[in-house]
Amino acid sequence: MFRDITTLIKDPEAFNYVIQQFTEHYQNQKIDKIAGIESRGFIFGAALAHKLNLPFVLIRKKGKLPAETVSQEYALEYGTDKIEIHKDAIDAGENVLIVDDLLATGGTASAACQLVEKIGGKVAGVGFVIDLPELKGREKLQGYDIFNLVEFEGD
Amino acid sequence: MFRDITTLIKDPEAFNYVIQQFTEHYQNQKIDKIAGIESRGFIFGAALAHKLNLPFVLIRKKGKLPAETVSQEYALEYGTDKIEIHKDAIDAGENVLIVDDLLATGGTASAACQLVEKIGGKVAGVGFVIDLPELKGREKLQGYDIFNLVEFEGD
Repeated sequence: MFRDITTLIKDPEAFNYVIQQFTEHYQNQKIDKIAGIESRGFIFGAALAHKLNLPFVLIRKKGKLPAETVSQEYALEYGTDKIEIHKDAIDAGENVLIVDDLLATGGTASAACQLVEKIGGKVAGVGFVIDLPELKGREKLQGYDIFNLVEFEGD
Repeated sequence: MFRDITTLIKDPEAFNYVIQQFTEHYQNQKIDKIAGIESRGFIFGAALAHKLNLPFVLIRKKGKLPAETVSQEYALEYGTDKIEIHKDAIDAGENVLIVDDLLATGGTASAACQLVEKIGGKVAGVGFVIDLPELKGREKLQGYDIFNLVEFEGD
């Protein structure tokens, strides 16, 4: 049992298990690029991209990327925020796997899907380590192929 | 030539080359854990930790880690900021390799070394993909084993 992903990645066997499970799930699917969502999505996305020998691109909070970006707003509990991707991160028609650590309300992940599509990519799937099903993130991601390794129910 | 690390990690061969070079440099050194500095340090740190089968721990901006933390202030161009590590991230005497993408002024990296030492660890090394030698980051890291793959001079 891991309380959060910091205790998971501190255990090389557990980290390896996660990357192995992702690899088995995705290795025979048509994926051209992996996009990691800042910042814990970078941890799993980068390790997976390295393992699958795929290009790795970043989806970051606003103002953090050096070149020309496209942005997408999403709702927070109070107010809104924005995430961004480089305009040239993805070529038209490429199949992109989006990776993050945790599916909660799905706001960020849904915005990430919109970003990929805005610049001409197809969302091949959205992969999470953990899903918190009570927060109904999957409802915001209907129509996309969602994969997760673990589900945590509330108390 | 890569303008920044986003173009590097988008190229699987280049990303693989970086991780391979880090692996060759560190694989025979006594390293117990890898610490990645938020957030681009997570990309290289996680891939390297996965490859070397080592525990991966996070050094994050203030207020981002879920459990009890220790923090270290560092100077910015204007003002100061703080980074944090979990108090139990490292056991006493463990040899920790700190990883980040870029050595600029060295403020964050130096604070990261202090964090590791504050919770009882030894800094086995600090590894960067890129060094900007004109910013003299190495001067702030004297006494530590510094490794980098590329140097960029200014105009």
